[in-house]
Amino acid sequence: MSVTAPAGFEAAGVAAGLKSTGKKDVAVIVNRGPQRTAAAVFTSNRAKANPILWSQQAIKTGAADAVVLNSGGANCFTGDFGFQTTHQTAERAAELLGVGAAGIQVCSTGLIGTGDETFRTRVLSGTADAISRLSADGGDDAAHAIMTTDSVPKTVRIEGDGWTIGGMAKGAGMLAPGLATMLVVLTTDAQLTGEEADAHLRAATRVSFDRLDSDGAMSTNDQVTLMASGASGRTPDAAAFRAALTEACMSLATQLMADAEGAGHDIFIRVLHAANEDEAVTVARSVARNNLFKTAIFGEDPNWGRVLAAIGTTDAEFDPYDVDVTMNGVRVCTGGGPDRPREEVDLSGRMTRVDIDLRVGEAEATVMTNDLTHAYVHENSAYSS
Amino acid sequence: MSVTAPAGFEAAGVAAGLKSTGKKDVAVIVNRGPQRTAAAVFTSNRAKANPILWSQQAIKTGAADAVVLNSGGANCFTGDFGFQTTHQTAERAAELLGVGAAGIQVCSTGLIGTGDETFRTRVLSGTADAISRLSADGGDDAAHAIMTTDSVPKTVRIEGDGWTIGGMAKGAGMLAPGLATMLVVLTTDAQLTGEEADAHLRAATRVSFDRLDSDGAMSTNDQVTLMASGASGRTPDAAAFRAALTEACMSLATQLMADAEGAGHDIFIRVLHAANEDEAVTVARSVARNNLFKTAIFGEDPNWGRVLAAIGTTDAEFDPYDVDVTMNGVRVCTGGGPDRPREEVDLSGRMTRVDIDLRVGEAEATVMTNDLTHAYVHENSAYSS
Repeated sequence: MSVTAPAGFEAAGVAAGLKSTGKKDVAVIVNRGPQRTAAAVFTSNRAKANPILWSQQAIKTGAADAVVLNSGGANCFTGDFGFQTTHQTAERAAELLGVGAAGIQVCSTGLIGTGDETFRTRVLSGTADAISRLSADGGDDAAHAIMTTDSVPKTVRIEGDGWTIGGMAKGAGMLAPGLATMLVVLTTDAQLTGEEADAHLRAATRVSFDRLDSDGAMSTNDQVTLMASGASGRTPDAAAFRAALTEACMSLATQLMADAEGAGHDIFIRVLHAANEDEAVTVARSVARNNLFKTAIFGEDPNWGRVLAAIGTTDAEFDPYDVDVTMNGVRVCTGGGPDRPREEVDLSGRMTRVDIDLRVGEAEATVMTNDLTHAYVHENSAYSS
Repeated sequence: MSVTAPAGFEAAGVAAGLKSTGKKDVAVIVNRGPQRTAAAVFTSNRAKANPILWSQQAIKTGAADAVVLNSGGANCFTGDFGFQTTHQTAERAAELLGVGAAGIQVCSTGLIGTGDETFRTRVLSGTADAISRLSADGGDDAAHAIMTTDSVPKTVRIEGDGWTIGGMAKGAGMLAPGLATMLVVLTTDAQLTGEEADAHLRAATRVSFDRLDSDGAMSTNDQVTLMASGASGRTPDAAAFRAALTEACMSLATQLMADAEGAGHDIFIRVLHAANEDEAVTVARSVARNNLFKTAIFGEDPNWGRVLAAIGTTDAEFDPYDVDVTMNGVRVCTGGGPDRPREEVDLSGRMTRVDIDLRVGEAEATVMTNDLTHAYVHENSAYSS
């Protein structure tokens, strides 16, 4: 059901010829109301694609009627022509939906630097085609239409107290923080103001997508959009809604991790007893981005020396000679020296847990990443993406 | 000739049984004077190996009689026992050479967390063995004895105005800044004070080893040591000596790059027209550390979008939509859009040049890196190192 699980939403996914494979490549999700509340968060990369430049402005009203997404080209660094393509996409969708262009969020993903006349023509016709096929059952088609190198669609549905959250995500490479590289649309039939939607979305993404760092490469096109229709007629308890939205985001984030390009291990790096949460994230991320650590996990080698060498590059508060490292439950390093024999660590499964105890304070954070494998190198060297 | 090219130096390299292969693994380089001037720079990683902790203290006198190096274990995170091993190594060498223990620099490289009783015994006996074999022709043996995953020894010799600089280096993985992961010994028979040696060494390493970032992983054991014997009887022109020392460091740094684990391309990322040199380095390094860029070069794909996505993560002064990117002489991106067709770029050779013009100021800097290949993943996953 994906984004059409909550009441008030319709969606469609169509093949517009952007993908050479002929697979679906344009999705539209429409909020039929009665509310048209919306919020979005965007990549913090200064190199932003044209749809990001458009959507960042359009969302400032705290409202949106629809999101139009394509997965056949990033429309990034395509100049004024590319921005006009985005603008025309919003205008075409608005006209067909009978709303204002500022109510249309636009998202793109694919190869940077592509977005010619043919691309524009197909995006515009695909948008019209999708709008003609909108349906309250269209969530799954939409989830398929945003896939690029994803091997499976990612969707989520969470039930609250009389309200529902639905969502879909795509993303398999360029997965790094602020945000992880991806497009996400979340929907709900709960009643929310624009301010509430924005605050909930930022809180939820901060501890989910922002903690996913598959390959350290930050995208130009990331966007997470939340639309609320209010169609349930229920105003949710704020804490309950935020918890549910966070759960939805975590579900989609872990689905992205599990399908990351060429990955063999899903690695949860948890930093314990840090001075504060920011430092816990910094320390965890230094490990998540260390290629020697990532290749060691691929090789199923509990190489805690590479963990300590990685965290030693940060300026977080801790004594490098008084740190514990535990891998899949076996403490292999304590107080700056070897502890249990590394042979006791079993890294043969996909799920990998690395706990780093800094012994300083009370804060903790977990960063999710993947190993660095032959398949990753293959996927990212053999094709332009 | 390596480190024994300048007058006043003797060296040896022996097999002490630290390496399971039976190859040479302990090297000693002795400065016979008349001067015993020395300077050293060390890894900026907070996780420092025991030899680093020792050598940082010992070099504060601005003098050294010898460097003892082993390539059979990092002696890092081996606790008090490991520090005592380093201390005993210095004392044993000092006793046999008839000098004070503070005159002995100690360097180690190999697997972190290893350094048991057997390791200590073999390092101590290897040190004694090497000292018994010291020779003015021993530079090549020493250069071989510090190799780990290096496929070839790295040496350099530069002739000045009546004085000579010699050098050797090892390093193939964990090559990242501040310093690149490696051990380097430089020798000269020029007459230098401790302050002069320190200033020249810092100036030379800042623009050579510090700009080498093969895989973004910073070591715990890096050290570059310069010893000056004064045996030429010549006091060098300061500018000429600094230029020659920089040339020696650049020669060794490019040799390290050319032999980096599993690398298929040597990539020089030059940032032009930056606001200042620090920002030029920051921008270049963001590309050097981007796995998607590195895999694209492995795939011989001139994917300039990945370059712009990488530099967009920095806070350096530039307009992301007004940047030029040139690959091996072909400008593929200008002013935030495509320029020459990517098909014109030939990336089939090992030497790869990426020029990024920020169009802001007058500063420039070059960072050296390698591509990310199947061989890199294999070497760093198949064995503990």
